[in-house]
Amino acid sequence: MGMSEFDFIDWIRARASPREDVVIPPGDDLAAVRWSDDLLLVGADQVLDGVHFDSSRHAPRDIGRKAVNRNLSDCAAMACLPVAAVVTAALPTGMPMAFAKELYLGMKEAGERFGCAIVGGDTAAWAGRLALGVSILGRPDGIPPVRRSGARAGDLICVTGPLGGSIGGRHMTFEPRVALARELARRLELTAMIDLSDGLSRDLRHVCRESGVGAIVDAARLPIHDDVRAVQRPGWSAADHAAHDGEDYELLFTTPARDDAAVRGLDVYPIGRITAEREVAWDTARGREALEPRGWEHRL
Amino acid sequence: MGMSEFDFIDWIRARASPREDVVIPPGDDLAAVRWSDDLLLVGADQVLDGVHFDSSRHAPRDIGRKAVNRNLSDCAAMACLPVAAVVTAALPTGMPMAFAKELYLGMKEAGERFGCAIVGGDTAAWAGRLALGVSILGRPDGIPPVRRSGARAGDLICVTGPLGGSIGGRHMTFEPRVALARELARRLELTAMIDLSDGLSRDLRHVCRESGVGAIVDAARLPIHDDVRAVQRPGWSAADHAAHDGEDYELLFTTPARDDAAVRGLDVYPIGRITAEREVAWDTARGREALEPRGWEHRL
Repeated sequence: MGMSEFDFIDWIRARASPREDVVIPPGDDLAAVRWSDDLLLVGADQVLDGVHFDSSRHAPRDIGRKAVNRNLSDCAAMACLPVAAVVTAALPTGMPMAFAKELYLGMKEAGERFGCAIVGGDTAAWAGRLALGVSILGRPDGIPPVRRSGARAGDLICVTGPLGGSIGGRHMTFEPRVALARELARRLELTAMIDLSDGLSRDLRHVCRESGVGAIVDAARLPIHDDVRAVQRPGWSAADHAAHDGEDYELLFTTPARDDAAVRGLDVYPIGRITAEREVAWDTARGREALEPRGWEHRL
Repeated sequence: MGMSEFDFIDWIRARASPREDVVIPPGDDLAAVRWSDDLLLVGADQVLDGVHFDSSRHAPRDIGRKAVNRNLSDCAAMACLPVAAVVTAALPTGMPMAFAKELYLGMKEAGERFGCAIVGGDTAAWAGRLALGVSILGRPDGIPPVRRSGARAGDLICVTGPLGGSIGGRHMTFEPRVALARELARRLELTAMIDLSDGLSRDLRHVCRESGVGAIVDAARLPIHDDVRAVQRPGWSAADHAAHDGEDYELLFTTPARDDAAVRGLDVYPIGRITAEREVAWDTARGREALEPRGWEHRL
């Protein structure tokens, strides 16, 4: 494509017609629509053969789980409770029925762990590759949705777990942080939150852009996942992997806090500060540098 | 696949965990979930290159429109009001951005005609073919959802327009019957309704099975679309095309009525009666015969 996926999303957002009942428009982890006297959070995400999984290598149950878990992770990013999901499955002609059943069981299992029922969908066979689309519905249940747009200069930036190297296998088996997100929302003032799917360097930029702020990350404080060792590339530091690899499915959030004491006792890692200047930078052994996205380099 | 799509759907339905807030479980045109003091109707449908459209031949705007219109047709089948939709788009690597934009504009236009906003989604490039998944949210707005399961012996069976031959091109340009469905629901007691996507012979069977009844269709009363002439096959009567072609996206409904007078003045065609015996039959020039599905024969 001539434009990037992100440019295309900008183009789409610029065309969305504002509507009073669409309380959170496209561009956040989920949209929110007013529904009677409640909110409905809704979003869609897909997993595609050769991009998000490899059907010749990954177990169908894991593929199904990942399809739903990616959406549950979006619920986590808004601190909402998942309620129900619907699915589209494009199945290659000739796929064994046993494989299709395992896909479904993986989706169902992943949802049920978080009280999310698969309530409908569409299945079709085609000459193409395996594609699963999942749309998820969530509700606030007492916690106002945490958006990407509320980060303020001075806020502490935290992540919920070690980052990097998920391509080694963790991208198929991660745990969506639904319960942790709600615990954090109850114990802290969360000004912004996002789940780390595109990679910290890209996802932090989403938060900064939506919030009209910048950020400085301390590279030495980035929690490095053990998985990085197995996939480390020449010329890449462990921190590079933590910043750019993506598909961590941990949460990144911001919270007003004078020092780390605010998050002590919580299972989170402070990694930097929000700034008024709109640049996103990190302090490394080489000094302060722009923290440029190095793309979503995930390749199967 | 070793089983048919329909067997697979049965297998999935048997595994759905019942839940009190899922008021209409999988198996109808849309599912319904209790949301605060309202209902939320939700479903998903997809269009796949080579199955539901041909990307080398059909305009991208029409492809986008069809993706959303198929879902709007599901709303019509439940007589609910569409509110919002989310989309997954799997775009072949190298697809021109202009093509992707047209897809989006088609989806947006189709939705906006019925007050349905595209509020989110996911776009990814892959080595596969073009696949669009759409999930739709609807609300009853004063009209209880019309299910497939309420048809009773003696009910009149009607369809909302001429059938057959949609493969000639109408399958890309049909009008979802959202407004008509709501008018019918206000003026008649609708005991069951479905949209004709798989073909009358198959979709009527869905209604009969869910309702625990049978049906007798009068072949001579099937309204035949002009499009049938252009696609008529050797050995197939016009009524065969009307009964089996599929992708009509008209509505089939049942209503208690002593005679056709009940639906006079409405833009609908009475075609038969619901019976207590669980067979689905039709009266043709050859006499009474089983109305067997001849499959969804739609091929691009």
